[in-house]
Amino acid sequence: MRTARSASELNLPTNAPIGFVPTMGAFHEGHLSLMRRAKAECGFCAVSLFVNPLQFGPNEDYAKYPRNEQRDSELAESAGCDALYMPEASELVGKPLVTIKVADLSGRYEGVSRPGHFDGVATIVCKLFNIVRPSVAYFGLKDLQQCAVVDLMVRDLNLPVALRFCETVREADGLAMSSRNAYLGAAARAKAPMLHGSLNDARSALIQGSALGETLETSRRALEEMGFEVDYIDLVDRWTFHRLDVPGPSAALIAAARIEGTRLIDNAFFEEAGL
Amino acid sequence: MRTARSASELNLPTNAPIGFVPTMGAFHEGHLSLMRRAKAECGFCAVSLFVNPLQFGPNEDYAKYPRNEQRDSELAESAGCDALYMPEASELVGKPLVTIKVADLSGRYEGVSRPGHFDGVATIVCKLFNIVRPSVAYFGLKDLQQCAVVDLMVRDLNLPVALRFCETVREADGLAMSSRNAYLGAAARAKAPMLHGSLNDARSALIQGSALGETLETSRRALEEMGFEVDYIDLVDRWTFHRLDVPGPSAALIAAARIEGTRLIDNAFFEEAGL
Repeated sequence: MRTARSASELNLPTNAPIGFVPTMGAFHEGHLSLMRRAKAECGFCAVSLFVNPLQFGPNEDYAKYPRNEQRDSELAESAGCDALYMPEASELVGKPLVTIKVADLSGRYEGVSRPGHFDGVATIVCKLFNIVRPSVAYFGLKDLQQCAVVDLMVRDLNLPVALRFCETVREADGLAMSSRNAYLGAAARAKAPMLHGSLNDARSALIQGSALGETLETSRRALEEMGFEVDYIDLVDRWTFHRLDVPGPSAALIAAARIEGTRLIDNAFFEEAGL
Repeated sequence: MRTARSASELNLPTNAPIGFVPTMGAFHEGHLSLMRRAKAECGFCAVSLFVNPLQFGPNEDYAKYPRNEQRDSELAESAGCDALYMPEASELVGKPLVTIKVADLSGRYEGVSRPGHFDGVATIVCKLFNIVRPSVAYFGLKDLQQCAVVDLMVRDLNLPVALRFCETVREADGLAMSSRNAYLGAAARAKAPMLHGSLNDARSALIQGSALGETLETSRRALEEMGFEVDYIDLVDRWTFHRLDVPGPSAALIAAARIEGTRLIDNAFFEEAGL
């Protein structure tokens, strides 16, 4: 595996397919499964590790976001990564004057809680695509709205890359894997799987015909009783994040909640979600 | 020469260099010289002809902008164009949710007179680059601020394309060639070269040590006396469009003015301007 601070030093293949996994590091099995799939499907797996300052708000965890390049390098190599790109912030966001704006979608749900977040994601993902020039890029479905933003950007800007959105990888107790799970203390960690549980319960209730408003309210109350502060819990179209009145094939239940200061997000689908 | 409404029908080469000239049609010698250069330098010349609605303001000339595909096709072929891409508006700007914002630069000069213009230019040029995937793209220096916007976008978004900015082609009397010159009546056409003349006079005066404010004021008054309504005349850095106090190697004199309702722009450099 090659590692480099600049893409030119990575010597990426120019006439062979590249499978690309953009990440912020702090690898867990979710990241590693994307890398394995990229390697298996494309023959060459490139990974970027860049904690993107543009996607953090001023009061968010940019400074304390977990960083461990040595451990991440070893994990990436073990998962089949051929080239690990770890740019300095100055290489990618020196003085950004050109930004990508994603209308509508970027102002909903996570975009309300995290103003500017998705424009920061879109801008950096676009830059990374232009630098790495992958045939296929891989994203985890835990960050569902991010998947929708990247999908819209790729279609609207005609970016020459195929996208694969991959099933969320979970701990044995159902908690969606996330680099931010490292922030959870023991008590919060014990309660954290409730977020997944409450979405599953809500999905079952809706499938059995329960009313939407009541179902969401029940889930919200259950979470609050466990000590969660709920940002949102809702039923939306997974591509537009417009609220839905009834579950359909592209529906997703989405939720964001804090438990003892750590913010978690998760989602549940009504049909096979991968792409 | 192949022509098509969709890029896939153009069958563009994927492993050979493409020289690309994005245009809004109504070809004149300025466009044709870019096509000849693209063909000579890259071996394959692709041209897009798309009157981009995103770069016209609500009170601008989108509807009456000159269109003549038959004539343009013949001219492009005569200049060495191998592939002419003429998308319908719906193919490129169906319902644009993702846009590119160029901070600072896009709000100066032409951006003041034409709000939203440069974001519309940047968004479509980015899309065209992603569709055509050229090695080199060619732009005329008459639209100097557009050149700066595209240059900044390519650098900030790491777009994999080289840019060539090419000398403005002029009529025998000095008028910069422009598709909008077709709007000029006989009287306006006779006066139009004054814009170029006044910039040349100002440049000579500055080189000879005249004070900047006085020089610009003299040029403005001369234009107004000829019947021009002057939008701006100023000395700027050609890449940032920040105002300069003294001419230096990257300085440009820029002007925009209306003569009998037709808006003209032009510029003059202090050093060799091409790139």
